[in-house]
Amino acid sequence: MAIKVTVWNENVHDKEEYVRAIHPNGIHNTVKDFLMRSNAGLPEDQQLIVRTATLDQPEQGFADGLLEDTDVLMWWGHMHHGEVSDELAERIVHRVWGGMGFIALHSAHMSKPFMRLMGTPCTLHWGDEKKEIMWTAMPSHEIAAGVPEHFELEEEMYGEPFMVPTPDELVFMSWFETGYVFRSGCCYKRGYGRVFYFEPGHESRPSYHNEHVQRILSNAARWAAPHFAIPHEIKCDWEPSLV
Amino acid sequence: MAIKVTVWNENVHDKEEYVRAIHPNGIHNTVKDFLMRSNAGLPEDQQLIVRTATLDQPEQGFADGLLEDTDVLMWWGHMHHGEVSDELAERIVHRVWGGMGFIALHSAHMSKPFMRLMGTPCTLHWGDEKKEIMWTAMPSHEIAAGVPEHFELEEEMYGEPFMVPTPDELVFMSWFETGYVFRSGCCYKRGYGRVFYFEPGHESRPSYHNEHVQRILSNAARWAAPHFAIPHEIKCDWEPSLV
Amino acid sequence: MAIKVTVWNENVHDKEEYVRAIHPNGIHNTVKDFLMRSNAGLPEDQQLIVRTATLDQPEQGFADGLLEDTDVLMWWGHMHHGEVSDELAERIVHRVWGGMGFIALHSAHMSKPFMRLMGTPCTLHWGDEKKEIMWTAMPSHEIAAGVPEHFELEEEMYGEPFMVPTPDELVFMSWFETGYVFRSGCCYKRGYGRVFYFEPGHESRPSYHNEHVQRILSNAARWAAPHFAIPHEIKCDWEPSLV
Amino acid sequence: MAIKVTVWNENVHDKEEYVRAIHPNGIHNTVKDFLMRSNAGLPEDQQLIVRTATLDQPEQGFADGLLEDTDVLMWWGHMHHGEVSDELAERIVHRVWGGMGFIALHSAHMSKPFMRLMGTPCTLHWGDEKKEIMWTAMPSHEIAAGVPEHFELEEEMYGEPFMVPTPDELVFMSWFETGYVFRSGCCYKRGYGRVFYFEPGHESRPSYHNEHVQRILSNAARWAAPHFAIPHEIKCDWEPSLV
Repeated sequence: MAIKVTVWNENVHDKEEYVRAIHPNGIHNTVKDFLMRSNAGLPEDQQLIVRTATLDQPEQGFADGLLEDTDVLMWWGHMHHGEVSDELAERIVHRVWGGMGFIALHSAHMSKPFMRLMGTPCTLHWGDEKKEIMWTAMPSHEIAAGVPEHFELEEEMYGEPFMVPTPDELVFMSWFETGYVFRSGCCYKRGYGRVFYFEPGHESRPSYHNEHVQRILSNAARWAAPHFAIPHEIKCDWEPSLV
Repeated sequence: MAIKVTVWNENVHDKEEYVRAIHPNGIHNTVKDFLMRSNAGLPEDQQLIVRTATLDQPEQGFADGLLEDTDVLMWWGHMHHGEVSDELAERIVHRVWGGMGFIALHSAHMSKPFMRLMGTPCTLHWGDEKKEIMWTAMPSHEIAAGVPEHFELEEEMYGEPFMVPTPDELVFMSWFETGYVFRSGCCYKRGYGRVFYFEPGHESRPSYHNEHVQRILSNAARWAAPHFAIPHEIKCDWEPSLV
Repeated sequence: MAIKVTVWNENVHDKEEYVRAIHPNGIHNTVKDFLMRSNAGLPEDQQLIVRTATLDQPEQGFADGLLEDTDVLMWWGHMHHGEVSDELAERIVHRVWGGMGFIALHSAHMSKPFMRLMGTPCTLHWGDEKKEIMWTAMPSHEIAAGVPEHFELEEEMYGEPFMVPTPDELVFMSWFETGYVFRSGCCYKRGYGRVFYFEPGHESRPSYHNEHVQRILSNAARWAAPHFAIPHEIKCDWEPSLV
Repeated sequence: MAIKVTVWNENVHDKEEYVRAIHPNGIHNTVKDFLMRSNAGLPEDQQLIVRTATLDQPEQGFADGLLEDTDVLMWWGHMHHGEVSDELAERIVHRVWGGMGFIALHSAHMSKPFMRLMGTPCTLHWGDEKKEIMWTAMPSHEIAAGVPEHFELEEEMYGEPFMVPTPDELVFMSWFETGYVFRSGCCYKRGYGRVFYFEPGHESRPSYHNEHVQRILSNAARWAAPHFAIPHEIKCDWEPSLV
């Protein structure tokens, strides 16, 4: 059975010229396209079915039960986190608890769903777009499969201290030429769901056209998909004695 | 400099006869009393100054800047979590992020501040009051100092799966005679603050009169107090290049 | 490509009557048999090729390059840990560092390879064979797929404190009727390899005939297999400047 | 009661001119001196009593029961790890399990005691001495008390992937001007003991004269000291039923 991925995008910067030059159909469609291409040659249960959703659509992108039909949600947001309704953020969090994967891209470190899943400030240092070298700190991780030990990007600088919980698994760490370091690929489990934060993706930079970034996010979509065969329910019931 | 502890209590059950028999002045005052007694013989910087606050007081217990004057907040709540205002819950979470300790007692696993700090469902199995044996799983932890390897209580049963993030440190685990096990003492870091969840404390049970429970919570208050000498601020500023 | 599993057994108790009654061809063959049966209906890359090895064989079971041809090593040992050569223990540890999975069964908590991979005393309490209830603490984990929330065994008692490092993932916890609790299913990463400790399997008990135990170990074999597509080497080289 | 620290040094490079220019009495005495100075103004139970030990002394530095009289052992080694006897390495590991703190300095990442405590390859990338910027990733940690958010050194380059277990707490991360990043301050618990790895300290660099490095190691000595009031023993006994 294929994995249903939804790529959500704030889709505001995407209407400006400098972003259209990089993402002619918006960041969400750039991501959708490379995720779809990653299906080539993979078995049925690793196929990704990718849909997009944006803030300016009805129900902020989640009309017609899309959230309930999503296995993995990728989230790109930046300046408009506050416009996402609290009610939608809560629905997303509950769906993660029930098993949906959530992949927070770039500035989504301050998005409502990610912050609620972390329970921490999620603040960091940031600065101009500069040369970044991304290092694979856990080369044996599924998300690092086929990714080199290091590769280069030019990205908005994100720096420590990154005020998140200690990651369950720290897969990538980044170096910025201006003197900063950053935990740029972090895995978490929340309820039955898996969460991955991945730093690259500033709207003015072509990082989503980088082959290694594409490989990482394609791996991450498959890693974050629910891995349990039998549906589980979140329970809080009184149970009779077992003895 | 002494540590300022505030013991907050929902204080609803406490007005009923069966609870007054165990806690004549409410659970919060029982806890306050043994925390104060734990000061005997300790140096100045380990002294606890303990105040109480309850849901039925002005500003739900936090008038006159009490929250901002609290180093460690202990929280007992059960059936009235929903009455705590979202605004107060957010203020508490932000104060933890800035360094305040937070100790969630018993049913506070479903309290607004704890759930927001965890980012998970925090559900569990529960059942009748039964014999519990509490085991020290990490005997070298500060919170376990002076606590025996195991001791007995009679408590409301709480059972796994406990849907919290993997604890940074798992200090206590419990056995219930009806066949359940539970991670009953769990440590977390959130922002600059420390969080401890501790399971015993049902309103109908005298667990807060148990010497080992008292020792654990007295240790926990001192462990959860801010450990950094220099005040830190949660920052999210652009910084110039360091190179 | 199939996964090559080797089930190693001390194979001493197995020659006695009371063990033969449960494991006519030794514990290793009981485990081999259910692992092979778990292949039914699974795709090629999830197929297990299972071989056995025992202490009384040439090179303590690892003649003809068997270790180098093993993807996942399951290890059952009890009273004869000291007879395993230090040199073999080191070779196993290095192979785990290079990506081989290692599954420590029952008393293998005190085996040389497991202790060297943990770096801790690995001690625990133990006692008579009693009723055990195993709980799934992380139901979303791959190793828990298809496993019920709890099930019963009759096993040698193992109890906390279990002096291992905090598990990367705690999948199972156990209750024993004599009042003990135990972290009975623990996951670790060591170098490029994955390690799983699983408590049941006393030689006098039929736990390896239990369907849930079989499912757990079948899942674990597939979880512990190397997940990286491209061979990695453990490197420690000087590297020229990247800037 | 004061904390008894022993600073152990390989003491080979220290006899050469270029090292004597920085450490006239050896690295061990440089470290001893700043640890002693850190006592000023601190209460009795935070006082450090510091002794030194070197590889060229009788019993490799541990004659007359010094190891058994040590609360915290700091270890500097580089090219002569292989000369430390296996028997001494095992005694150190067992003492850590019993509660002694162990602080591995710089190249001690490949020392016998550290590698045995980790159970991993402990490899890393390394290269020429270059500008390093050390970042405080967990500013609320005791070891970071009084340490700025970042500071500069000139050090031998150490780079990821650092093949250690995921640290229980990651306190410091480093940037090197040649494009590398490194987890430069890592905390672990092993048995009843605490372990801290700290990267700076190449024999040709004056890092141990840096005020922030001195503050970090002074904090670390106090953090790593046993925190339990009552002596614990590592036990592995049969226990009668508790029910």
